[in-house]
Amino acid sequence: MPLRSVAPERWFASDNAAGAAPEVLAALLEANSGHALAYGNDPWTKRAQESFCRLFDRDVVTQFAYGGTGANVFALGCLLRPAEAVVCSRVAHVTYDETGAAERIIGTKLLEVETVDGKVTPRGLSSVAHLLGSEHHVQPAVLTITQATEMGTLYSIEEIRTLCDLAHEMGLLVHMDGARIANAAAALGGSSTGLRAMTFDAGVDVLTFGGTKCGAVFGEAVIFGRSELAVRSKYVRKQTTQLHSKMRFIAAQYEALLDNNLFIDLGRRANDAARTLHDAVSDIESLRLASPPQVNSIFPRLEDPAKSQLQDWSFFWDWDVAASQVRWMTAWDTSPADVARFAEGVREALR
Amino acid sequence: MPLRSVAPERWFASDNAAGAAPEVLAALLEANSGHALAYGNDPWTKRAQESFCRLFDRDVVTQFAYGGTGANVFALGCLLRPAEAVVCSRVAHVTYDETGAAERIIGTKLLEVETVDGKVTPRGLSSVAHLLGSEHHVQPAVLTITQATEMGTLYSIEEIRTLCDLAHEMGLLVHMDGARIANAAAALGGSSTGLRAMTFDAGVDVLTFGGTKCGAVFGEAVIFGRSELAVRSKYVRKQTTQLHSKMRFIAAQYEALLDNNLFIDLGRRANDAARTLHDAVSDIESLRLASPPQVNSIFPRLEDPAKSQLQDWSFFWDWDVAASQVRWMTAWDTSPADVARFAEGVREALR
Amino acid sequence: MPLRSVAPERWFASDNAAGAAPEVLAALLEANSGHALAYGNDPWTKRAQESFCRLFDRDVVTQFAYGGTGANVFALGCLLRPAEAVVCSRVAHVTYDETGAAERIIGTKLLEVETVDGKVTPRGLSSVAHLLGSEHHVQPAVLTITQATEMGTLYSIEEIRTLCDLAHEMGLLVHMDGARIANAAAALGGSSTGLRAMTFDAGVDVLTFGGTKCGAVFGEAVIFGRSELAVRSKYVRKQTTQLHSKMRFIAAQYEALLDNNLFIDLGRRANDAARTLHDAVSDIESLRLASPPQVNSIFPRLEDPAKSQLQDWSFFWDWDVAASQVRWMTAWDTSPADVARFAEGVREALR
Amino acid sequence: MPLRSVAPERWFASDNAAGAAPEVLAALLEANSGHALAYGNDPWTKRAQESFCRLFDRDVVTQFAYGGTGANVFALGCLLRPAEAVVCSRVAHVTYDETGAAERIIGTKLLEVETVDGKVTPRGLSSVAHLLGSEHHVQPAVLTITQATEMGTLYSIEEIRTLCDLAHEMGLLVHMDGARIANAAAALGGSSTGLRAMTFDAGVDVLTFGGTKCGAVFGEAVIFGRSELAVRSKYVRKQTTQLHSKMRFIAAQYEALLDNNLFIDLGRRANDAARTLHDAVSDIESLRLASPPQVNSIFPRLEDPAKSQLQDWSFFWDWDVAASQVRWMTAWDTSPADVARFAEGVREALR
Repeated sequence: MPLRSVAPERWFASDNAAGAAPEVLAALLEANSGHALAYGNDPWTKRAQESFCRLFDRDVVTQFAYGGTGANVFALGCLLRPAEAVVCSRVAHVTYDETGAAERIIGTKLLEVETVDGKVTPRGLSSVAHLLGSEHHVQPAVLTITQATEMGTLYSIEEIRTLCDLAHEMGLLVHMDGARIANAAAALGGSSTGLRAMTFDAGVDVLTFGGTKCGAVFGEAVIFGRSELAVRSKYVRKQTTQLHSKMRFIAAQYEALLDNNLFIDLGRRANDAARTLHDAVSDIESLRLASPPQVNSIFPRLEDPAKSQLQDWSFFWDWDVAASQVRWMTAWDTSPADVARFAEGVREALR
Repeated sequence: MPLRSVAPERWFASDNAAGAAPEVLAALLEANSGHALAYGNDPWTKRAQESFCRLFDRDVVTQFAYGGTGANVFALGCLLRPAEAVVCSRVAHVTYDETGAAERIIGTKLLEVETVDGKVTPRGLSSVAHLLGSEHHVQPAVLTITQATEMGTLYSIEEIRTLCDLAHEMGLLVHMDGARIANAAAALGGSSTGLRAMTFDAGVDVLTFGGTKCGAVFGEAVIFGRSELAVRSKYVRKQTTQLHSKMRFIAAQYEALLDNNLFIDLGRRANDAARTLHDAVSDIESLRLASPPQVNSIFPRLEDPAKSQLQDWSFFWDWDVAASQVRWMTAWDTSPADVARFAEGVREALR
Repeated sequence: MPLRSVAPERWFASDNAAGAAPEVLAALLEANSGHALAYGNDPWTKRAQESFCRLFDRDVVTQFAYGGTGANVFALGCLLRPAEAVVCSRVAHVTYDETGAAERIIGTKLLEVETVDGKVTPRGLSSVAHLLGSEHHVQPAVLTITQATEMGTLYSIEEIRTLCDLAHEMGLLVHMDGARIANAAAALGGSSTGLRAMTFDAGVDVLTFGGTKCGAVFGEAVIFGRSELAVRSKYVRKQTTQLHSKMRFIAAQYEALLDNNLFIDLGRRANDAARTLHDAVSDIESLRLASPPQVNSIFPRLEDPAKSQLQDWSFFWDWDVAASQVRWMTAWDTSPADVARFAEGVREALR
Repeated sequence: MPLRSVAPERWFASDNAAGAAPEVLAALLEANSGHALAYGNDPWTKRAQESFCRLFDRDVVTQFAYGGTGANVFALGCLLRPAEAVVCSRVAHVTYDETGAAERIIGTKLLEVETVDGKVTPRGLSSVAHLLGSEHHVQPAVLTITQATEMGTLYSIEEIRTLCDLAHEMGLLVHMDGARIANAAAALGGSSTGLRAMTFDAGVDVLTFGGTKCGAVFGEAVIFGRSELAVRSKYVRKQTTQLHSKMRFIAAQYEALLDNNLFIDLGRRANDAARTLHDAVSDIESLRLASPPQVNSIFPRLEDPAKSQLQDWSFFWDWDVAASQVRWMTAWDTSPADVARFAEGVREALR
């Protein structure tokens, strides 16, 4: 039986289902003027790279890439030698959602360790220390953590610093998969200062700075905290198929995203919408919504027929079928009206 | 000493230096409306895929990708098993200009064979036949040809048919790298009929249909002539990092490119500009321009100081330094005025 | 303080620490007569391959390889396509002890699932079913199980049949890593009949039949239960560096191992020695030896100083340092006197 | 029509068709005494490694491997980073006869350059210099040369030094594939001094020192001229499936081969037999045997029916069917009587 509530204009399926932010699109259009040398030898790329140096207040090296999976593979590929492995959480996008790209392309093993609330724990990281030095085992060489995590949680700055210190002590580098770094930056301080504190200042060596999920048409940025880590990056980027010829079109979008920290603003809008949605339905006990979301997703329990009824009305994804858990995710463009309508539909379905 | 001639507005450096065609950009903008499911589950993708079926008048399977290197690796990766190899020309982009992506990502060997005017010859293809069946050698499994070639030449329809027949007899599949298929289509018939004749009707099994070089912001299409060749393509595309989440933005551009065969029109403009440029300077003997260009590039001989003087004035790339050969390449947006000014500069420099 | 007991002649470190059985060495010597074509085109190889057909009473295809890691990679490499994955136990040699060879060489992901007593459970196997069909995840395509397991346990014939049936239902093939198949065969029936029942008759598709650990100088055999699975095996073997030129020297050893089921006899000797050792020390409570060993290893608890004292006296390996667990492993040549002396040393150290 | 001459006892098919030298086999047997720790932690391995240091009079690091293809892949894998390539001759075993192992396992591209008489020329090596520094091309990082070559020729010490100097100037390391280093050592000086002069003293960085072809049962050695090149070799060896557990059996054979430079003696026997064969038939004009062989192979022209008649009588391989060229190869055990009989058969067939 279809719901009678009016469906929201925008879905709660994914931040990937949203389009591009108007400022970003305007910048892309503006970049379409005349000729510019390909592969990054253009003024837009130079300016965007400088913007990243200002944003992080250090001489970072920024290399643009096409997409999230590619950016991760490219970044890790710069850091790994044969027989080396990447330590990650069991739910890390790189191990669970990238169809084995890292294994295939850079031939590495992903060592999944203890994960609490989607986060690698120091104990998890320590659990691979005994592999070091033995020829029979891959050698852990990089720790990758996702901020915000695939479970919609956040590492605190302190947690990141602890993990980075431990990783460095063990001889590992640290990569941060920041596909949703905008949401994390909005949640942890909401400023460049907070962003710096949770990334390079905390010890992160290389950062994937997501563009697509926070409002771009396409494009990701891989940011090396020290130039020596980027020495071979131009070759590895091309080899991992992540070098765009008309680079200005990615760079221009990033210029817009970094202008006045627009990306943080976009992340905040998504986070706020998720918080509002949570507050609007948290009294419904069957959803079992404990604490408010840290960023832009909520993982309620929902069973048929209500679940299917709602999905037919305004689509969203199952998260863990065995646990009857679904995911509601907001985007930079989710409006208060969208949230209000969606909450009303939830109430109708669960009445 | 700088030239006194007025430099052209657009360069003759590469078709990659051009921006996006206005119709393509308009389509991209129009696609930015509301939410759409990611990864190709959207109406734009469905429509663009149907457009390709109409264009080729057969049930092709179309999968979009990010860029040219990625599209090649993705396409070949769908066709190869371990210990199999790809036969190609010595100047093929896939072997010479992709930084070893195919070797790294799909673990294949590229067997470079006899190449005349940038084209694989039947004798070249036959030269690997003796490898078949011996466990000590990689097994040739795919022939890849580039149309138009990296040397600015074209395979005739008859040449393609001959190569496809021979490849199929030997048990190989045929992939066509059509990064500049628009230019080729414009040159060989200038219609869908010509395009069909030189691709699937001639025996090509899988085609990379280039978007970027003919006027898109980004995006390539891999087109499988028979659905059984595409069975595992969705997994291979994701694994080779070529799956864009906000797919509608690629699909919408292709819708525009295929609408009224706009891509052929764009290809023709570039070809015409190259022809005009050729005609305007072909009387200058030192350039040694024999026959007019088949598509959108000219490879004149040019030596310093004239060469450097011209490059400083309006940039273009060296092609073969040892042979004092440079490349002048036109794009969809090269105007008659650009050509006239460039030709004038050439005359001034060589006076 | 050194122990006063007389140390055993042979260690309890590993079956890899033993040399070769005299019958095997004699066969190798006998094979050293005159010239024979390389790469398996010799009478020894033909005869050994026929012996395997008789042993399994079916038209198996046997391909010899150099070592255990190589044999696993070679076998799996014949079965996998891009974006496909291998399901295995968390302690499987292929994922834990092979330094990422499978990831590097065949580009596959290893999906570690629920493991009880070193064995994959049906629930573990089922837990990856939800990945099937989604482009974002690797596609499980092969289940690999180790018989006897790395933990010294055995799958029952019934357990193997259940796993094979489930795997086949899910569309997966089954590989058995039989690095210690001799020990397993000795323990489960002690005859060809038992061996057949636990391998191809139970549904196993491809078997790695270990030679090195049961008494060979070097050499492993990969046995394909159906010829269609072996179609490309000769190419994959060479590509994975497992093709020995002087093949007769591996084949001759296997001829000897299969003659009168010598391998089962060798396996039984190792198993018996482990059982005798277990019985000789099982009354020592601190060792916490619950049930007798199924094959040729025991995993007692042992702490310093007794542990180090014993290791200095007659070396063996730590197994799980955190759990104070060590491994005592017997070989085909461990004698009753070795066991008696070792047990005496253990008693002295723990007194 | 079968030949009436009595066929030789040993073939002229390949040095791989020969068995093992008695001294080598005796050493292998002697190593089969009691237990020894696996993976090289045994006295035989230690001693053999020290023998190599003495042989080369420098602190080389020696790691044993199973076979020739594996040893090459392992050695190159220690030297290469992503996006790097190997420069080699067009007929190099690593590119032509290893079924794409290097591409698959270490993901590298092999750049085949100008080759004269089976040897890389300085001009060939220089021809890849223009690739250095461009992100669109793989980066040449290792030059591999084969000594003696696959064509039965030798690089002079001076030629090796010139190539090494040029490679080092270009920033490349040099690997020597010494599958037939014994034959080369016998031909160039016949002493340790000559061997040193043509390897590490000439600038070679890493050497594959072949055992199988010169008289071993199995086993190759990879020798790193400087310890820093070997830092990660133990991991790479295991990952490339080349770590033998019962290592003493390889090491013991090498001890025998190095004892009193037995390997040089074995190489000399093969070389002498080839020279004798050449001299015995060089007057037959149709064979077109120009200069005497440098090592152990001759490549005469031979056409049917004589060719087939001879092959049926005493097997040897075709080399270049199009050129009617076959290969006659001698081994360490080819006797004067074998040569005399074979020459007689050739005369009978060509009468």
